Amino acid sequence: MPTDSKTSAPMIAYEGQPGAYSEIAIRQVYGTSAIAVGLPDFATVHESLRNGSVDLAALPVENTLAGTASLHDNWDILAEAGIHAVAETVVHVHHCLMTIPGTRIQDIHEVRVHPQPIIQCRRHLQEMLPKALIVRGDTAASARQLSETRETGVAVIASKLAAETYGLEVLHEGMEDDPSNFTRFLFAAREASLPPAGTTAKTSLAFTLDNAGPGSLFRALGVFALRDIDLARIESRPIPGAPWRYRFFVDLHRVCGDPKVDRALEHLGEMVTELSVIGTYAAWAD
Amino acid sequence: MPTDSKTSAPMIAYEGQPGAYSEIAIRQVYGTSAIAVGLPDFATVHESLRNGSVDLAALPVENTLAGTASLHDNWDILAEAGIHAVAETVVHVHHCLMTIPGTRIQDIHEVRVHPQPIIQCRRHLQEMLPKALIVRGDTAASARQLSETRETGVAVIASKLAAETYGLEVLHEGMEDDPSNFTRFLFAAREASLPPAGTTAKTSLAFTLDNAGPGSLFRALGVFALRDIDLARIESRPIPGAPWRYRFFVDLHRVCGDPKVDRALEHLGEMVTELSVIGTYAAWAD
Repeated sequence: MPTDSKTSAPMIAYEGQPGAYSEIAIRQVYGTSAIAVGLPDFATVHESLRNGSVDLAALPVENTLAGTASLHDNWDILAEAGIHAVAETVVHVHHCLMTIPGTRIQDIHEVRVHPQPIIQCRRHLQEMLPKALIVRGDTAASARQLSETRETGVAVIASKLAAETYGLEVLHEGMEDDPSNFTRFLFAAREASLPPAGTTAKTSLAFTLDNAGPGSLFRALGVFALRDIDLARIESRPIPGAPWRYRFFVDLHRVCGDPKVDRALEHLGEMVTELSVIGTYAAWAD
Repeated sequence: MPTDSKTSAPMIAYEGQPGAYSEIAIRQVYGTSAIAVGLPDFATVHESLRNGSVDLAALPVENTLAGTASLHDNWDILAEAGIHAVAETVVHVHHCLMTIPGTRIQDIHEVRVHPQPIIQCRRHLQEMLPKALIVRGDTAASARQLSETRETGVAVIASKLAAETYGLEVLHEGMEDDPSNFTRFLFAAREASLPPAGTTAKTSLAFTLDNAGPGSLFRALGVFALRDIDLARIESRPIPGAPWRYRFFVDLHRVCGDPKVDRALEHLGEMVTELSVIGTYAAWAD
């Protein structure tokens, strides 16, 4: 069962194992006292939030290298009735090369790495370890495994937190070829919780436009533009199973308590279908 | 080398093997005389178009069940300078269960199927073949293989064209659980080719908005809305490697030769960066 005091030690579900980038997201926002609950996949994370076995879920929603392609399910969960975004953070993804303590770079003959970091670290891997076998691994899970098997000559690519968690030695930080690798997370809860008035915040929403004719998106965006409300992001994507229909996801910048945003959302509700206000949360400022 | 007469028998690259849904797309638009060139992956398809070894490339750009998540690379190719969309078609995806002739449904102990159709046919597979082993296959490639091995008790899920191509018997058409399964294709060429004036057509374009402040997308869409130009689709997605920047893809309905669309595109060029007119092509009417 979740804690009854969300402010002291919330239970927060995430996909993965201790040392995952999602755990870093949790620590950035909720500190070390939060109870991070690693689960095997997103479906289980979503279900644990819905059924009340955790207080919050940490959901990656955007990655600056990979886009949102693999994260659509998290947006769909956030758009569900009864699920609300309550906090945001951005994790700067630094991939670290780690081994059991005492290993030297020249001794490494095998590197275990998740398929996505393989792509993100390709050049560094080729330059630093041209002869090493690159084997499919699972980031924090591979780090944990290595801490148990204590194989010499094997390296893992995972987060610095994973190295700390499993007592591995970081031989190189910043294995990523492109340093602008950020993952944005939203924290989902079953109840909305508004930041105090005056807080620099964002509001996220989703909507569909049906049979609305020429200019329908233009008119929808007008409710924001004509009130000088700045959009941080707009993304649309086809609705699976609904031919040629699209769902729009919008994040807007705001100050909490500013009534013009509430009026804009009311106005938007008049012209779109299936408007879902995903939540209003303090904007992450690194 | 490609043919010198594009109208008689163009050479058209596609990803896959004879009998793939992409070949159906080619037949729908260019008939049986077109020379369909099956290639192992999209990178090779793109390269063969760029280097002139084919006249055209058939590119799936949207699927009504899966969205565009896996098709982004094709949109990026279309947005490149020197690549133009010249035709559109929509393939109604009907998955067929096929075997070597004479096999009965109750004899099937193994079904070879591509991971995406596995998801799309899950319910039908469970109802019709509850005890069969579902094995990862490759659509048309699996059909071809079966036509060579002639294994009894093995079925493949692929297109009706694949069954015809490889002499297999269709035991059941419409294995897909959701019949609204359509894939949209664009045909890419190295030179634009405009349909005759008066043709019902679409124009596709891509653009980015940089540092344009509140209302920038609203103003950009205004060039269409204020001219009563109907958007068929707008999709935006994060630009990989460019944190928090988005690229917009727009398809609009038009009549060829209507000067208001040209004026709208000129107007749009004043307010966006990296405007790419992907092409104007006759709209597919089934």
